[in-house]
This record gives sequence, structure tokens and C-alpha cells, in this order.
Amino acid sequence: MTTITVFKGDGIGPEITDAVIKVLNAAGADLEYEFFNVGAKVYEETKEYIPEKALESYEKNKILLKSPITTPVGKGFRSLNVTLRNKYDLWANIRPAKSNPCIPTRFENVDIVTFRENTEDLYVGKEEQIDENTVYAYKIITKKVSTRIIKAAFEYCVKHNRKKLTCVHKANILKMSDGLFLHIFEDIAKDYPQIEANSLIVDNTCMQLVMHPEQFDVLVMPNLYGDIVSDLTSGLIGGLGLLPSCNKGDEYAMYEAVHGSAPDIAGKHIANPSALLLSACMMLDDLHQDVVSSKIRKALNKVFEENSVLTPDLGGNATTEQFTDEIIKNL
Amino acid sequence: MTTITVFKGDGIGPEITDAVIKVLNAAGADLEYEFFNVGAKVYEETKEYIPEKALESYEKNKILLKSPITTPVGKGFRSLNVTLRNKYDLWANIRPAKSNPCIPTRFENVDIVTFRENTEDLYVGKEEQIDENTVYAYKIITKKVSTRIIKAAFEYCVKHNRKKLTCVHKANILKMSDGLFLHIFEDIAKDYPQIEANSLIVDNTCMQLVMHPEQFDVLVMPNLYGDIVSDLTSGLIGGLGLLPSCNKGDEYAMYEAVHGSAPDIAGKHIANPSALLLSACMMLDDLHQDVVSSKIRKALNKVFEENSVLTPDLGGNATTEQFTDEIIKNL
Ligand SMILES: CC(C)[C@H](C(=O)O)[C@@H](O)C(=O)O
Ligand SMILES: CC(C)[C@H](C(=O)O)[C@@H](O)C(=O)O
Repeated sequence: MTTITVFKGDGIGPEITDAVIKVLNAAGADLEYEFFNVGAKVYEETKEYIPEKALESYEKNKILLKSPITTPVGKGFRSLNVTLRNKYDLWANIRPAKSNPCIPTRFENVDIVTFRENTEDLYVGKEEQIDENTVYAYKIITKKVSTRIIKAAFEYCVKHNRKKLTCVHKANILKMSDGLFLHIFEDIAKDYPQIEANSLIVDNTCMQLVMHPEQFDVLVMPNLYGDIVSDLTSGLIGGLGLLPSCNKGDEYAMYEAVHGSAPDIAGKHIANPSALLLSACMMLDDLHQDVVSSKIRKALNKVFEENSVLTPDLGGNATTEQFTDEIIKNL
Repeated sequence: MTTITVFKGDGIGPEITDAVIKVLNAAGADLEYEFFNVGAKVYEETKEYIPEKALESYEKNKILLKSPITTPVGKGFRSLNVTLRNKYDLWANIRPAKSNPCIPTRFENVDIVTFRENTEDLYVGKEEQIDENTVYAYKIITKKVSTRIIKAAFEYCVKHNRKKLTCVHKANILKMSDGLFLHIFEDIAKDYPQIEANSLIVDNTCMQLVMHPEQFDVLVMPNLYGDIVSDLTSGLIGGLGLLPSCNKGDEYAMYEAVHGSAPDIAGKHIANPSALLLSACMMLDDLHQDVVSSKIRKALNKVFEENSVLTPDLGGNATTEQFTDEIIKNL
């Protein structure tokens, strides 16, 4: 029995969390949960976005299932997502985008896993007002951090039998920073002769992704490109509502839905819990409960296939609860 | 009669330039040309990538039609494209991506114009080795430069009767730098109540572009996002081989094909001159020779429509010369 920490988040966060937990339980996941409300509502009451107790739980359990949190607007606030990634050194952000034949889009046979470096690049949040006219932001690339994400991506290819790893960069312009990332990639590639390693400039990557996405397998890149490219790949398979995401470090892991907290539909019982559910499946895989995760994925697919009990964003008119129950019925 | 400077460039550069000039002449463009070889071959002979004489011609004529130049690889070299943009303060990069019914892609009804700031952001090329492990690159955003590109984009909307302008940014993370850009956008928007102004985070923009591109009209953004997003939009309409591009400043203008110099097919007489030809049409529009440019665009479309005399990248087996002659036949 593994105990995990669960953050319920803002907007549709609590609803989709409830849905996911219901499915996990029905599928027989060997899990215990410690639930915490986090985000804007909690802040109103406690002046803390993430209560100390919630962090303590995560520090004990090391595994977090997190639904969307709205980051407060304004210069004083740092993104809570980014704060969590940094505080727990969750340096690898892994986002698999796989076409689902039951979810028709303009694209077929997309099966792309993005390995996004998750702790540096422009996300360090180091910015400076140089003079009245000028702001600098710092893009930081280090050897150490680039090395670990690139190695992790190669190791992933080996473990998951993926054939090709593409390094995405802009080293033709950023010769020293992205140049360093690319150079490390080329160096490490030598240790993995069985993996086809190539590199592609980020702008060209985005053009290729919308023309010939089937050429891509696993991608590895610095933080900001990973943010952009992983959203793009989600678009190829039907959007962020279907994209699982996991953030991993040496000690901690965080599984999250990347879509927003959708305050406009919160409480209306129409939110789609699929992204959080698929993220939870990644968690089950990592916990060696892949019998359970494949049961869940199959059931979800059946619901997509039946095409009758779907939430509005998927073209149906079911409630979150009806959609959830339909998954459970198909387990 | 307007005299323009023409850079023939590397790889397929000379071939596509010849093709374009042939069409311009046949269509009756009121132009005179000063031709220059630039790029790698010239460098071998003269140790200069762009000969002084070529620059002098541009400085006199102020209008440049430029085919692809290969930037030398290596830390010492700066991109020649970027160098030209900076030297002549070509601060607005305008890239219209419009679906062509005769070029089938996965997308229809795309009609998106990207206004890319062209002189600052990470493209300043300011990078620093901080210590053995760490490189910094500087993203620079200024009030002055952001203001002029944003104003230009709004003015373009007014002049071309475009309804909506979207500011693309990542101000949720880059609160000061992209925050400045966004803030200026919101400020200037107040002067254009007739234009629908909105803003969208760059990652979400890329997802939306591959799912619902028809929602977009004109986009304005800092340099790097513009690089990425404009390549993405080109993919929606069939690739960079069909995307015109122009770079404008207060004094100078440069019209260029954005695709590479394709050394692998250079001299094989199969290069597609369309992107450079469409860029030349943008030039003719700006020179108030739009009777000529629309004649050319119509002829090109007819060739696409006939679907029989196309270069291999467009699915045909015609040579560059046959394709060019077919355009001329249809003028
Ligand atoms: C919410 C935001 C801070 C975050 C990011 O930029 O990383 C999101 O876009 C994501 O991709 O997880
Ligand atoms: C060739 C390269 C320097 C250039 C850029 O990055 O701007 C190109 O990608 C473009 O978009 O014009």
C-alpha cells in the first residue's frame, strides 16, 4: 500500500480530483490518499496558497497527484507550479502525446514523448530592470542540469524501446547556451549507439510537427521550448485535456493535469478528468501497478469509443459524474 | 522605375533568384536590379560573406530581395540574416500565412499574419560563460522597440482591414520582460477601439494554432516566439516553401525566402521558387505595383490549380525552369 499526497487545486480541480480518485479506487489501485485543498480559496482563509501541512505530507510521501492551481496574478507572485518544481527539484517533465483512434483530430499516428528540462532556462525567473526603457531576463543553461535531463531521455528510450531521440534547440542563434545543451546531447548520444539521435532547430521542429508529426519519437529540450512544444503536441492529439504529465526528480515525483483550472466551468459538473486520470496512470506505472493503469486506460478508451457518454469538451453532453461512472462500468 | 538590390545567396539561392527575376520581368514589374553573389562561395574567394559593394548597393537602393544565405557554423560567426536585420534596423518581420485552396494541407481557411519583433529578445546574441558549469543568455525587451512593433501591427490591421490582433507572450513566467511587452500592447490597444485586441500565452497559442487556427487573424510578439510561431503557421499552409516574408525598418526593407539554402538539391534544377516569388510580391505591393503582384499571384495559383507542372516538393516532377515557364505562361 502506497500513500500519496493529493492537491485538489482551484476551479475544476476538486471535481476532477474526486472523479479520478473514484476511478482509482474502483480499479483496485493499491493507494492511500492524503488530501489537501490548495490554491486561491485556501489563500483567502489562510494567506497561504499551499498550506505547510500539505507540503509536509508531500515531503513524507514523495508522490503528489496535483490538479490545476491558479497562480495569483501580479508581479509579487511566482507560478505555484514552477515553485513546486523548483522546491522539490523535479527536473524532468515528461509529456507523452499519443493519438487515440477514438478521438479524431487532423492527425493520426502521433506518438511523441517530450522530455522537458524543468528547472532552469528562462524559468529561473531572474529578471532585471536595467533602465527606464530596458528589461533583461536571464536564460540559464548549465552543464549539470542539461546532462541529467538528456541522460534521462536516452535511458527512457532504452527502457521503453523507443528508437529515436531528437534534441530541440536554437543553437544557431544561442551558440553558447543552447550550444552547450546541444553539445552535451551529441556527447551523450555516443554512449547510446542503439538510439538514433538527431537534432532540430525549434522553429523547424514546430513546422515539422504540424506537417509530419509521425517522424518524431522522443524529444528532449530546454524548459521553454518544452513548454511550447509539449502544448503543440497536445494539440495534435486533441488538446491539453488529454495530455498526461509527470514531473520527476531524484527524490520526488509530481503527476499533474497541465490544463488550466477553468474557473468559468467550475462547479458546473462538466469538467473532463481525463488528463488528471492519465497522469495518475503514469503514476501507477511508476509504482509498478501497471495492471491497474492499463485497466483504467482500456476502460477510458472504451468510453471514448462508445462515443455516447462524453463531457461537452469531447463533444458529448454527459456530466463529470456520468463520464466517471461510465469509465468505472467499463473497468 | 525602382532599382532594387538582389542577393543571390547560397545553395538553391541563385536558381530561385533567376526564376523570380524571370517572372518579375515577364509580368512587367517596373524594376531594375543590382545583383550580388553573397554567402559561402563568395567567402571562399574574398573572405567576406557579404561584399562591401553589395552592402553599398543596398544602402543606396534601400530595398533588398534576398534568397537564402547559409550562415557559417561555429562560435565566431553570427547569423548573416540576423546581422542584416540589425545593421539596417529592420525591426518588423511580417509573415503572412494564408491557406491556398490549391495546396491541400490538413488545415483550411488559415489567414494569419505574424508581426515578429526583429531586433531584440534573445536574438541580441548576448551570452556569457559565468563559470565552468553555467552559461547565461540575455533576453532583452525594451519599451521603445516593443512600442514600435505593436503600433505597426495595429496600423497594419487598420490599413488591411483586419479585425483582430493577438499579443503572444509568456508574461505569466516572464513578468517583467514579456510583462512589459504585454503591458504596452494593452496600452496601445486603447487607441484602436475598432480592432479586437486580445492576448494569449505562447504555449497555448501553439496548441490553439494546431487545433483551431481559424480563430487567429494578426499576431504580434517578441522575436523568438515570432520565429517559432511563424514557422508553425507556415506548416499549416504547406511549409516554408510557400511563406513570404518581409523585414522592414524606418528606412530599409528586405524581402526574403525564409527556408534554407537546401545545399542537398542545389544545382539539380528542382528548387521551388514560390516563397521568394511571394516575398517579391510583397515588395511589389509596397512599391504600389500591386497590379503586377496580383497578376503574379494569380498565375502562380493557376499553376498550383492545374496541378501538373510542379516541383518535386509540391508533389510534381517539373524542373524549376518548367515551373517558372508555366507561371509565365499563365500571366
Ligand atoms: C502554468 C505554467 C506556469 C506552466 C508552465 O509554463 O510550465 C504550464 O504552461 C505548463 O506547461 O505546465
Ligand atoms: C536562419 C535563422 C537565423 C532565422 C531566425 O532564427 O530568425 C530563421 O529561422 C528565420 O525565421 O528567419
